Amino acid sequence: MMQPTTFDIVISGGTLLTMSATMEILEDAMIGIQNGCITLVDKSRPVQAVRMINATGCLVLPGLVNTHTHLPMVCFRGMADDLPLMDWLTKHIFPAEARFVNKKMVYDGAMLAMAEMILSGTTTFCDGYFFENQIAEAVQACGMRAVVSQGFADFATPDNPKYEKMMAAAQRFVARWISSAPMITPAFFCHSPYTCSPQTLMNVKAAARENGIMFLTHLLENKDEIETIEKRYGKKPARHLLDLGVLDQQTIAVHCNWLSLEDIAIFADLGVSVSHNPVSSMKLAAGVAPVPQMLKRGITVGLGTDGSASNNALDMFREMDASAKIHKVTRLDPTVMSAQTVVQMATIGGAHVLGLDSLIGSIEVGKEADIILVDMNQPHLTPLYNPYSQLVYAARGADVITSIIHGKIVMENRRLLTIDLPEVMNNVREIAAYVRTEMSGRKQI
Amino acid sequence: MMQPTTFDIVISGGTLLTMSATMEILEDAMIGIQNGCITLVDKSRPVQAVRMINATGCLVLPGLVNTHTHLPMVCFRGMADDLPLMDWLTKHIFPAEARFVNKKMVYDGAMLAMAEMILSGTTTFCDGYFFENQIAEAVQACGMRAVVSQGFADFATPDNPKYEKMMAAAQRFVARWISSAPMITPAFFCHSPYTCSPQTLMNVKAAARENGIMFLTHLLENKDEIETIEKRYGKKPARHLLDLGVLDQQTIAVHCNWLSLEDIAIFADLGVSVSHNPVSSMKLAAGVAPVPQMLKRGITVGLGTDGSASNNALDMFREMDASAKIHKVTRLDPTVMSAQTVVQMATIGGAHVLGLDSLIGSIEVGKEADIILVDMNQPHLTPLYNPYSQLVYAARGADVITSIIHGKIVMENRRLLTIDLPEVMNNVREIAAYVRTEMSGRKQI
Repeated sequence: MMQPTTFDIVISGGTLLTMSATMEILEDAMIGIQNGCITLVDKSRPVQAVRMINATGCLVLPGLVNTHTHLPMVCFRGMADDLPLMDWLTKHIFPAEARFVNKKMVYDGAMLAMAEMILSGTTTFCDGYFFENQIAEAVQACGMRAVVSQGFADFATPDNPKYEKMMAAAQRFVARWISSAPMITPAFFCHSPYTCSPQTLMNVKAAARENGIMFLTHLLENKDEIETIEKRYGKKPARHLLDLGVLDQQTIAVHCNWLSLEDIAIFADLGVSVSHNPVSSMKLAAGVAPVPQMLKRGITVGLGTDGSASNNALDMFREMDASAKIHKVTRLDPTVMSAQTVVQMATIGGAHVLGLDSLIGSIEVGKEADIILVDMNQPHLTPLYNPYSQLVYAARGADVITSIIHGKIVMENRRLLTIDLPEVMNNVREIAAYVRTEMSGRKQI
Repeated sequence: MMQPTTFDIVISGGTLLTMSATMEILEDAMIGIQNGCITLVDKSRPVQAVRMINATGCLVLPGLVNTHTHLPMVCFRGMADDLPLMDWLTKHIFPAEARFVNKKMVYDGAMLAMAEMILSGTTTFCDGYFFENQIAEAVQACGMRAVVSQGFADFATPDNPKYEKMMAAAQRFVARWISSAPMITPAFFCHSPYTCSPQTLMNVKAAARENGIMFLTHLLENKDEIETIEKRYGKKPARHLLDLGVLDQQTIAVHCNWLSLEDIAIFADLGVSVSHNPVSSMKLAAGVAPVPQMLKRGITVGLGTDGSASNNALDMFREMDASAKIHKVTRLDPTVMSAQTVVQMATIGGAHVLGLDSLIGSIEVGKEADIILVDMNQPHLTPLYNPYSQLVYAARGADVITSIIHGKIVMENRRLLTIDLPEVMNNVREIAAYVRTEMSGRKQI
């Protein structure tokens, strides 16, 4: 007689939103996890497990995927809000970054940001900032999954005072992480077509291709980028990138608030994917991305929070909520963005954007076990008619009670198991106290 | 020697946002409460109190004021979303209301809604629905403060199958509550200019004036209301109400998404106040109210959630967040709505809208003690540069840990003290189960 299978973890009793291609919803579901992977999805029945998790009264779904962050910017959360964009950038954010961004700030900020993300249901994120080695080290410490993108721009950055050294440093960064850490995927991130020359964009994309990694860039966050690029290169930004040959299936364009229908056709043809950051774009008054048209043309779209200086939260539930509503109201049509579509963007869509959809984004046998439990036994989530509606329009990050990443429980009953929260919060408070003191001589902070 | 004063409750150690006319912020503040009222606001120092509340690490602010709700609609939360407005109303909401709204549903729904509101920082709300006696009874059971508005329309309502009996019932409702319950303020609520005839609007306003109570109406939620009213009466909706003589300082116009600059001038001249419900209007794709222009003209604006069928939450933190961002992005100007302005609308502004600003809306000696504590010692609220920014852009309802209404602690460390939560949730789940079964024969629910 065969020895019965023993799972490392079994989650049972909840309502499972698989987010698979068929969008199957399974009541009283059971998920078996072995060696970090999902090896069983079925109705609940008696099985053997080292660890049983009772999900009764919970929605069980894939961990959320945040496709765009600048984690260390948590240190600047709420430092300067409600200001004209250029004042915000040039008088507050850029000076603060030039002055306060260093390895310690990046690591400490990333740790706090990851605490916030885990506590609100995110299991995978894509970061782009400076000192990305420190981000990757923090990812390892927290047990999260991440695409970690080393930044490029045509000016000195906090981690690379000399532009000439950026590529060599980036290549070392990729070499360090590309095959040593299964939870970390290195990538390259050009800041934008207006801060990176055609040569930089082409060089970075070539190096990304050589390494087989993703290439990211901010694109068309603000309307005036169209005029800037047209003046400089005689064409619109998306066409500019097309002509430089940097658009393909391994390219992620972030924001895309001013993507035209023609641009959308280009993106659809080439398989370029998009990171949609509705909360940040609303707060910065940057614009509303034409996501319904993108989806109609088959472009893969994921959600992202952007950095905490422009959001000011890293809570993907807020992004789902904002994305579901902003397209409705700006088009005066409540049917253009359904709750289900939004949950897809936040899970399997985001996984697809990051090139990780064979590993994560849905709960199916063979995928890695990135799973969250949302406690529905609460007044603001009662009664329950439709789980997608409830997640998008009524739930919030604080309703996620347990989070599993690659088969490891990183949060249980809202207690973080991989992060020393008081220490991490104190580290960032100390940085903020220093920032406050140093900037207090300036006119406004 | 005088006996030292003993307070019923003293809250000390937090950062106090007074929301007074000077917008004073007091660090390490102390608030003394006696007989339901605030009798001391000062820096912390040793005093005697029956009950000391340590607010260290908290923001302390006036309880939030929700200026527009239909509480029992929690029973329909998430029942039908992402649908064209008329389908949603005529195929789902109206049939469900005709069939399922009764005294028990109203009371049970209101109890659950109040649990949700207290848990997210609301201490006062203004409701408009049917069977408002049951709402008022639930308000008394929960210890909240409310303006309770009996609804009118030119058709049979669940509580008044015959229109002729509406006014008599409404008069009895006012007589019952107007001086018997200090926490309950009765009011009259005409559904809208398109569901109430000129005669109804005038009669109800006259009866409201006679009783010295507020008169509310939905106005210009959707754009097509303009055409409907123009066809019927040859003028635009606000002008129609002006000509009927129903606009004055005791009138609250709800939504006002399509208020013109001319309408705004009329409202400003007459002192009509506005309930702004950004989340509901975004979700229903109804429109964006011109709130920045209203505020510029001196109109008093408060925030409201609307009912749970169109929101789907009763969390004023979501309204603050949405209001701060929707005006920025639709005007492409991040300066049109500051976080501080939004917190004002959610507190003293809302109190002013409801005619309760002499009692509540700020923390000042002489006002009644409606006070909430927001726990800032959390990763998503770290670091703290600006309390208004943090409340609006990073905090959420779940961060409110303690709530005091009229000097009575109704929630402490997130535990409700006046509501049996499991029972209240079960009551609504039973109603929802019945609704689900009964409606399952229909095409879609």
